Amino acid sequence: MTTYYSIEIVAATSEYYFTLDLKSVILVALINYFLTDMSLTQLNTYTSLLQHYAEIKPLRMQSWFENDPMRYDTFSFQLGELLLDYSKNRITEETIKLLCQLAKDAHLEKKINDLFVGHPVNTTEKRAALHTKLRDRKNFPLEVKTCFERIKLFTEKLHHQQWFDNSNENEITDIINVGIGGSHLGPMMTTEALSHLSHPKFRCHFISNIDETHLNAVLKIINPKKSLFIISSKSFSTIETITNAKKIKTWLKDFVPNLEKHFVAVTAVPEKAIAFGIPEDQIFKMWDWVGGRYSIWSSVGLSLALMIGMDNFFAFLDGAHAMDVHFRESPFEKNMPVILALLGIWYINFFNASNHLILPYAEALNTFPLYLQQLDMESNGKSISMEGTNTNYATGPLIFGVQGVNGQHSFYQLLHQGPHLVPADFILLGTQDEMLIASALSQTQALMRGKSKQEAFQEMINKNFTSDEAEFLSSHQTVPGNKPSNTLFLNRLTPYNLGALIALYEHKIYAQGAIWNINSFDQWGVELGKQILNDILKEIQQDETNSNQDASTYGLLMHYKKMRSLV
Amino acid sequence: MTTYYSIEIVAATSEYYFTLDLKSVILVALINYFLTDMSLTQLNTYTSLLQHYAEIKPLRMQSWFENDPMRYDTFSFQLGELLLDYSKNRITEETIKLLCQLAKDAHLEKKINDLFVGHPVNTTEKRAALHTKLRDRKNFPLEVKTCFERIKLFTEKLHHQQWFDNSNENEITDIINVGIGGSHLGPMMTTEALSHLSHPKFRCHFISNIDETHLNAVLKIINPKKSLFIISSKSFSTIETITNAKKIKTWLKDFVPNLEKHFVAVTAVPEKAIAFGIPEDQIFKMWDWVGGRYSIWSSVGLSLALMIGMDNFFAFLDGAHAMDVHFRESPFEKNMPVILALLGIWYINFFNASNHLILPYAEALNTFPLYLQQLDMESNGKSISMEGTNTNYATGPLIFGVQGVNGQHSFYQLLHQGPHLVPADFILLGTQDEMLIASALSQTQALMRGKSKQEAFQEMINKNFTSDEAEFLSSHQTVPGNKPSNTLFLNRLTPYNLGALIALYEHKIYAQGAIWNINSFDQWGVELGKQILNDILKEIQQDETNSNQDASTYGLLMHYKKMRSLV
Repeated sequence: MTTYYSIEIVAATSEYYFTLDLKSVILVALINYFLTDMSLTQLNTYTSLLQHYAEIKPLRMQSWFENDPMRYDTFSFQLGELLLDYSKNRITEETIKLLCQLAKDAHLEKKINDLFVGHPVNTTEKRAALHTKLRDRKNFPLEVKTCFERIKLFTEKLHHQQWFDNSNENEITDIINVGIGGSHLGPMMTTEALSHLSHPKFRCHFISNIDETHLNAVLKIINPKKSLFIISSKSFSTIETITNAKKIKTWLKDFVPNLEKHFVAVTAVPEKAIAFGIPEDQIFKMWDWVGGRYSIWSSVGLSLALMIGMDNFFAFLDGAHAMDVHFRESPFEKNMPVILALLGIWYINFFNASNHLILPYAEALNTFPLYLQQLDMESNGKSISMEGTNTNYATGPLIFGVQGVNGQHSFYQLLHQGPHLVPADFILLGTQDEMLIASALSQTQALMRGKSKQEAFQEMINKNFTSDEAEFLSSHQTVPGNKPSNTLFLNRLTPYNLGALIALYEHKIYAQGAIWNINSFDQWGVELGKQILNDILKEIQQDETNSNQDASTYGLLMHYKKMRSLV
Repeated sequence: MTTYYSIEIVAATSEYYFTLDLKSVILVALINYFLTDMSLTQLNTYTSLLQHYAEIKPLRMQSWFENDPMRYDTFSFQLGELLLDYSKNRITEETIKLLCQLAKDAHLEKKINDLFVGHPVNTTEKRAALHTKLRDRKNFPLEVKTCFERIKLFTEKLHHQQWFDNSNENEITDIINVGIGGSHLGPMMTTEALSHLSHPKFRCHFISNIDETHLNAVLKIINPKKSLFIISSKSFSTIETITNAKKIKTWLKDFVPNLEKHFVAVTAVPEKAIAFGIPEDQIFKMWDWVGGRYSIWSSVGLSLALMIGMDNFFAFLDGAHAMDVHFRESPFEKNMPVILALLGIWYINFFNASNHLILPYAEALNTFPLYLQQLDMESNGKSISMEGTNTNYATGPLIFGVQGVNGQHSFYQLLHQGPHLVPADFILLGTQDEMLIASALSQTQALMRGKSKQEAFQEMINKNFTSDEAEFLSSHQTVPGNKPSNTLFLNRLTPYNLGALIALYEHKIYAQGAIWNINSFDQWGVELGKQILNDILKEIQQDETNSNQDASTYGLLMHYKKMRSLV
C-alpha cells in the first residue's frame, strides 16, 4: 500500500521534480499528501480552463455554426458503425485542446494502461478491474475460456431441448433471472435491447425487488415444469436475491419432481450455491476482479446468452473489445470515451452541471438509462480521492433518462426553459423511421438554437395578436437555447454495436474517475445502510420498547407495527 | 390582461403601501415591473431565510435528534391513511415558521383560492386549471356529471360483455391505451398501481412511442377480435398518437368486420375523432380547462375505470378531493402539500439542490417517478415569471427515481458519498413485509446519520486491519450524512389513497409554482421542437441539396440518409 502511495505522489508532483532537489520533492509530496488534496484544481491547465470558461460562457454555439461550415466535420467522428457528433457543445477547438491537456496532466494515459494491465486500480479492495479481459477472446485466460465453453454447452443443450434426461419430459421455455443491481440491470437491459434476436422458444423474465408483487407477477404466468431460474449473486448472500430464491424453491417444490434441474447459479461463492441445493455442474463462476456493474460480460450474461445464442453473445463481447482497443490506443483528440468524459468534466466542473441525461430514441433501449444510472452513479458518485482526502471539486453527475419521444411529451419543458444546464446524450439508430429521427434532430437543434424574443414576438404578430398580447406571450415563449447535446448514431442495434456502446460508457466513466482521482470500482457508500438493516429488522420483529433508534426511525417503526396489527 | 397585472403589482409591493405615498407606490411598482423581476428574493422574509440558512448549514440533524425526543412528533402528521414524517430534514421550528411566512408573503393563500375558484391561473393561455372540479363529486358541473355517467355505462357494458350486439360474438378482453405524455403516463401508472384490483377478464396495454417496436410488441400478443383501442389525444392531432392509431386501423382491418366497434376516443376535438372513423357515441370528452398532465381525473382515466371498475374509480376521485379540501383549508404549518413545497424551496433556493428524488418502496408504484417527472418538470421547469420577466432564482428541480430496493443496488452510492445534496421522498406502504420497510428505514437513517471517520476506523481495527490500513480504508468509508429525506407512509395502496397521493404532489407543485411566481400550467418550451420537426422531416423526405440547417443537423441528416440507402 505505502509503495503504491509514493509512486502516486511522485507522479503527481513530477512538475517540481526538475526544479527542486530530492529533499524538497519529498517535502512537497508530504505536504501534498498530508495537508491538502492533490486535486485536479491545482493543475495549471485547470486554471487555464477556468479562464477559457469565462471567455466561452457568453458565446453562443449558433454563431459558431454560422461562421464555421466545417464545425460538424471538426467535432464528429466514427468508429465502426458508431458515429459521435459533439459539435452541438459549448466548445471551440481550444476547449478540446485544453481538456485533452488536462487529461494528460491528470495522468490519464498511465491510468488507462493501469486498467488494462491489471494494476490494482480498485485500491480500497486491493483488486484489479479486469472486465476488459472478458471480451478479449483471442487472449482469454484459461479460467475464462473454460467458463465460456461451459456456458456454450449449456446454452446449446437448452436450445436443442436436451436439458431433461428423459426427452419425453418437458423442455425449458421460460428463463427467469433472479438478481439485483448489476446481476439484474445488465441482463434485463441487454436482453430487451436485443429481443429482436431472441430464440423464439424462450421467454425471459426478471425478478429483482423483494416486494412479493414482483415475484408473484412472474410466477403467475410461467409453467413451473418448463422454467429455469438463474440465481445470480456474486456473494450468493445478497439478501433480496436469496430471499426470492428461497420463495421460488418453496413454490416450485409442489410442481416438479426434480427441483435441482430448475435452478442454475451465477456466483463467486459456489459452496453457498451448493448448500442452497444447486448441483455443482450448474454453477457458473464469477470472479473477484469483475465488479457487479461490469459483470454483464461474465456468466452474469447467461440469460442473454440463452436468449440470443452464443454466436451473438460472442459478437457482443467483440464489440466491447473493439471499443477497448480504441480506448487504449487512440489519441485523446479522437478517443470517443475520452472525448465524452472531457465534455462531462467541462460541464460538471466549469458550468456546474450536476446532471447528465441519456435519451435513447429507441424502444429497445428503454432501460439503457437505468443501466447507466448504476454504472455511472455507483462508480463516480464519490467525493473521496484515491489518497483518502476529500475532493474539493464536483465529481459524478446524477444520471437519468427515458426513451426520447416519451421524454419530449414529459420533461423536456425543463430542458428548454428550466433554470438548469442539463447536458444530454441523444442515442439514435439508423434503422428507425424518419419521424423518429426527425423528432430527435428537432430537439437537439431546438436546444442549441432556442427562440429569441423577437422571433416569438413576430410569430404572435403574424397570428394577429395585439402588440400588447404579443409582448406578453413572447416573453413566455422565449427559449434561451445554447444547451449542449451529443448525438450518438448507431447504424443498427446489433450485439456488436451494443457491446461497443456499453463499453464506450464504461470507459467514459473510468476516464472521468481517473481525472477526478477517485476509485471508480468500490462502493463503500452503500455499506452503511446494509449494516443498519439488521438492527432495524430486529426491532420490527421483536416487541422491544427500549430503542436506540432516532425518534424518526422509532416513530415510523411504531407506526408500521400499529398498521400491521390492524390488518 | 392589463387589469390582472396591476393587481399583481400592488399585491407584490404592499409592504411599501404603508410607508410611502400613493405616487411612490406607483413609481416603485412601475420600476419593479419594467426594470427588475418582482422576485421572491426581494421579500424581507427571503433575506431572513438567507441569514437563517447560514446558521442552519453547519448544524447536524443528528444532534437535534439527540437533544429533542419530540422531534418526530413536531415534524410529522397524518391525513387519513397518509402519514408524512419530515423530521429528517435540515430544519428547526424557526425554519418552518420562516418558510410559512415566505409563502404568506408570496400570496400563496390568495393563489390557492384562485386555483379553486377558477381564476385564469394559466395566464398565457387565458384558462383556468380546474382539475379539482373533476373530483368534487357532490358539485360536479353538468357536463362532467354527464361524461362520468357515460363512462360508467360504457364500463358496465364491457364488464357485462354487452359490447357487441350479437352476444355470440367475441367479447373485449384487451384494452389498449394509445396516447403519449399525460394521455399515457397517468393511465399507465394508475393501472399498474391498482393492478391488484383489476377485473380478471381484462388486460391493459399501453402504446406511446412512435417506434414501431412498441406497437408491434403489443399487436403480437392480443387477439384483434377481442381488442378495444382507446385513442387518447386532447387535440386528436398529437403526431405520435395519430400515427399509431392509423397503423392500428390498417392492421385491424384484415381481422375484424366491424372496425368502429374496436375504437373509442378521448379528446377535446370530437370532430377529428369522427373524421378518423370513431362513432360519436364512442367519443369521450376532454376539456380545455384540464391540462394533459392533470387529466387522469377526466375521461383520460377511461382505461383505469375499465380495469378497476367505476366504484373504485370514484373512490380514486374522492381521495384526491379529500386532499383538495385539506390543501384549501389547512393552515400552512399543517398543510401537507404546502410543507412539501416549502421543504423543496428550502433545498432548491437556499442549499442549491437541483434534483428531487422519488423513491417508492413498492413494485406497484414502479412508474410513479415517471409520472411525477412530467407533472413536476413540465409544470415548474420554467424561468419566466407570471409577468414575463426572467426569474433570478432557481425554480423546478429535476425529478427521477426508481423502486427503492432496486435503487439501493444501483445509484444510492451517489446519495451517500457523492458531491450533491439530493433530497428524496421515500414512499412506503403499511402492507409491505418487514424486510422492505426495514430497508427503507435503514436508508433514511443512514442518509441522516452517516458514518464518521472514527467509527469507520474503529470497525477496521476490530476487523484486525493494521492502523495504516484502517486509516486509509476509513477515509473511504466515511459517509458524511446530514442528507435530508421525507417519508410518506400509506396504510394501503387503495384507489382513495392513490388519489390523495397524486393530488398531494399536484398541489405541492402548484404551491411551489405560486411562490416562484411562475405559470405551472403552460408548456411553451416544448413548442419549438414541434415547430422545427416539419422542416427537418421535409429535408429527410426530399432529395434536397440546399439546406438551411446548421452543419450538425445537416451532417446527421446526410448520415441517416446514407445509412438508409444501405439497408
